[in-house]
Amino acid sequence: MQLARVIGDVVATRKDPGFDSTKLLILQPIGADGKDVGRTLVAVDAVGAGVGEKVFFVRGKEASFPFHPLEMPADAGIVGIVDHWSTVKGKK
Amino acid sequence: MQLARVIGDVVATRKDPGFDSTKLLILQPIGADGKDVGRTLVAVDAVGAGVGEKVFFVRGKEASFPFHPLEMPADAGIVGIVDHWSTVKGKK
Amino acid sequence: MQLARVIGDVVATRKDPGFDSTKLLILQPIGADGKDVGRTLVAVDAVGAGVGEKVFFVRGKEASFPFHPLEMPADAGIVGIVDHWSTVKGKK
Amino acid sequence: MQLARVIGDVVATRKDPGFDSTKLLILQPIGADGKDVGRTLVAVDAVGAGVGEKVFFVRGKEASFPFHPLEMPADAGIVGIVDHWSTVKGKK
Amino acid sequence: MQLARVIGDVVATRKDPGFDSTKLLILQPIGADGKDVGRTLVAVDAVGAGVGEKVFFVRGKEASFPFHPLEMPADAGIVGIVDHWSTVKGKK
Repeated sequence: MQLARVIGDVVATRKDPGFDSTKLLILQPIGADGKDVGRTLVAVDAVGAGVGEKVFFVRGKEASFPFHPLEMPADAGIVGIVDHWSTVKGKK
Repeated sequence: MQLARVIGDVVATRKDPGFDSTKLLILQPIGADGKDVGRTLVAVDAVGAGVGEKVFFVRGKEASFPFHPLEMPADAGIVGIVDHWSTVKGKK
Repeated sequence: MQLARVIGDVVATRKDPGFDSTKLLILQPIGADGKDVGRTLVAVDAVGAGVGEKVFFVRGKEASFPFHPLEMPADAGIVGIVDHWSTVKGKK
Repeated sequence: MQLARVIGDVVATRKDPGFDSTKLLILQPIGADGKDVGRTLVAVDAVGAGVGEKVFFVRGKEASFPFHPLEMPADAGIVGIVDHWSTVKGKK
Repeated sequence: MQLARVIGDVVATRKDPGFDSTKLLILQPIGADGKDVGRTLVAVDAVGAGVGEKVFFVRGKEASFPFHPLEMPADAGIVGIVDHWSTVKGKK
């Protein structure tokens, strides 16, 4: 999984019906130092995250597991909201 | 998933028969800032997208799920046409 | 999927028996502009492609689907030979 | 799999219930030369690893296999603690 | 799949029991030009490869297929030892 900030959302009227009951959020992955790293992506949200929150997300088909028995063609999903994290360099 | 622009299509006479009833579109991934990011790719299209439209696509076997019970050896598929998206920096 | 040129082949006497009846071709991925992009890779061939041809290939377990019921531990496979492609910048 | 150092952990109160009984550790991948390479990530831990240890981890759904029959939407998991490794350039 | 050189091995006493009967080898991926490309990784070995040999390896769950019915949480596995390969630029 990777840490990320929720930075926005996507509105799409014409989409696979599997996405009808899910939010589509835009994530900016971040490193353990809290800095942006890599490309933004679009993820489904299984935990009720909102813009501005720090989360961790999963890549791959596992992204849709929390929605079972609903199914959707997703490859990225938020699976946790981060309270804080600690590394040998300190706490964030 | 990732945001992308549809920039073209591929014509292939000799191909896996699973692709016979699908369009093969060329995508240019874009970031949340609307700028091109990363390599172009070829995707199947489950939502009737056309050249010039902004879409989001999924990577992996999930790309073929919308075509069930048809099966094809695909690893990228358009699963939504984007109306607009919003980030903390504005709306696109 | 990605566009690629077939640039060579691999000879391997000791290999997983699943590969016994397949060609192992070397691919150079290319972008929609026709230029080389990224690393070369080894792919199985489901469509009878030859060195010099432009193809599109799939990554992941799907690479072995065209060979069913044969199974092989492959993660990349050629699934179409490209006649030509068109983008907003022209035809190739 | 990749070599990595365990550099921290993540605390998340609101998360997929599949993670309730697992630690979420932060990894810094390292190369065979022992140097940091690539981005930090969050992994589940199947072998009782701790901060400061060198491990190897797996990407993909396989990350959750050691927890069977428990299931969690994970895409990275520690599957071994490294005693040492040897290359043609020496032992680490 | 990708070409690689076997450059070392990993010793791990505490690991997922699925790895008990497999070697864990360190690979340096190489391009079709024979030069190192990208990061080293750890792979299981299904074909009896040794340090110094050139091989091709598969990424993903397919890495464990040759070991069936044994199962292990692996995402990279050597599936062939390369005799030689040929490209339009010559033979290696």
